[in-house]
Amino acid sequence: MRHRTNQEMSAVWMVKVVGLGLVAISLSVELLGWLGRRLRPRKIRNEVLFFPSEMSCVEHIVNPNSPYTCLCPFPHGVETSFSRLLRILLSASSTLDLCVFAFSNMDLCRAVLALHNKGVIMRVLTDKDYAAITGSQIGVLRKAGICVRCDGGSRGSVYMHHKFAVVDGRLLITGSLNWTLQAVQANMENVLVTEEPDLLRPFIKEFDRLWVCNEPGQHHSLGT
Amino acid sequence: MRHRTNQEMSAVWMVKVVGLGLVAISLSVELLGWLGRRLRPRKIRNEVLFFPSEMSCVEHIVNPNSPYTCLCPFPHGVETSFSRLLRILLSASSTLDLCVFAFSNMDLCRAVLALHNKGVIMRVLTDKDYAAITGSQIGVLRKAGICVRCDGGSRGSVYMHHKFAVVDGRLLITGSLNWTLQAVQANMENVLVTEEPDLLRPFIKEFDRLWVCNEPGQHHSLGT
Repeated sequence: MRHRTNQEMSAVWMVKVVGLGLVAISLSVELLGWLGRRLRPRKIRNEVLFFPSEMSCVEHIVNPNSPYTCLCPFPHGVETSFSRLLRILLSASSTLDLCVFAFSNMDLCRAVLALHNKGVIMRVLTDKDYAAITGSQIGVLRKAGICVRCDGGSRGSVYMHHKFAVVDGRLLITGSLNWTLQAVQANMENVLVTEEPDLLRPFIKEFDRLWVCNEPGQHHSLGT
Repeated sequence: MRHRTNQEMSAVWMVKVVGLGLVAISLSVELLGWLGRRLRPRKIRNEVLFFPSEMSCVEHIVNPNSPYTCLCPFPHGVETSFSRLLRILLSASSTLDLCVFAFSNMDLCRAVLALHNKGVIMRVLTDKDYAAITGSQIGVLRKAGICVRCDGGSRGSVYMHHKFAVVDGRLLITGSLNWTLQAVQANMENVLVTEEPDLLRPFIKEFDRLWVCNEPGQHHSLGT
């Protein structure tokens, strides 16, 4: 084996160092890309709607396949807090858990029925006293075959006062707004829409707890 | 200058490569740490409280400097949804904007008065009709010198139905819970606590809008 000169050795080592450097750079670039993807916060949906909502026609949202043009006197094609709420609700594709004190708004009732007809699995939890008042749409939902459970009325003047919905187990809709015409069109109200897991998860858990507690014929402790 | 042997050359280059490697590793560790700090999403506070709250003594929270031991019959030192809500409210150090339909809970009133006495700047917006009913604490707040404005009553059966508070312009407290004893101790209710800017900002804006709209003697449009 012949002895290599110093110059030859330097060149060989230089090639090794440069090669190693290139490998290190390419690995670093890959690692940085992976870290960037992993650490970048995923954009979580958060939205707030305020009421009273402006009046507008929502026929095209609740009944998008109708062949008829709506002739109602309200402005058409205007996006309002209420039309936004309807769109968010109607985005449900698998489940809708609804926990609402007062439910008399007919457009919201039509939206819920449309989801039921589309095959969305629905659970409705409402207040016993309010479910029985004139104008409540709870009877309509029951007649359509939607599973409804009542809470509150059996324990004196205690109300199931929540106003929240969980869409597809991924989106929470909650706030001060009861599902009534008065709340939508007249009162100062808020509705908060969020995918934030730390807010969503407790509501899912609480819905399940209340749902089990109010199984017909069952007597469960309601301790919180 | 003497010629170095191949072995000597290899050793010199080996030292160079190892040195370069060590520098690269230490730089990488520093870069990863920086990236981690920069890209890790800041932990935003999100919390949900459900009611009815268990009954417990809240004297030590509302009146922490009292020299007396509370002798009330409720459990002492128990953390409940209500004690948590009180603690969060009492964390206010500069401002509290309160927008609540019904305010008759005396412990919440004491908490608000304690904040006022501490120098926290307070703005209270409430419903005109509810402010006038027996048991409402709005008169007590007014007498203490807290700035209160009313909304709703002047426009027929329209309610200022919000139930939210903004603490120090950084924390939103909102939900279904009116500030009454019934809501805290009996009803099924929720309170959501969040620092999430996308949820907080709209509430701050809406409070300011309603505050200006309800300036005494002013007539502003309430269009949303």
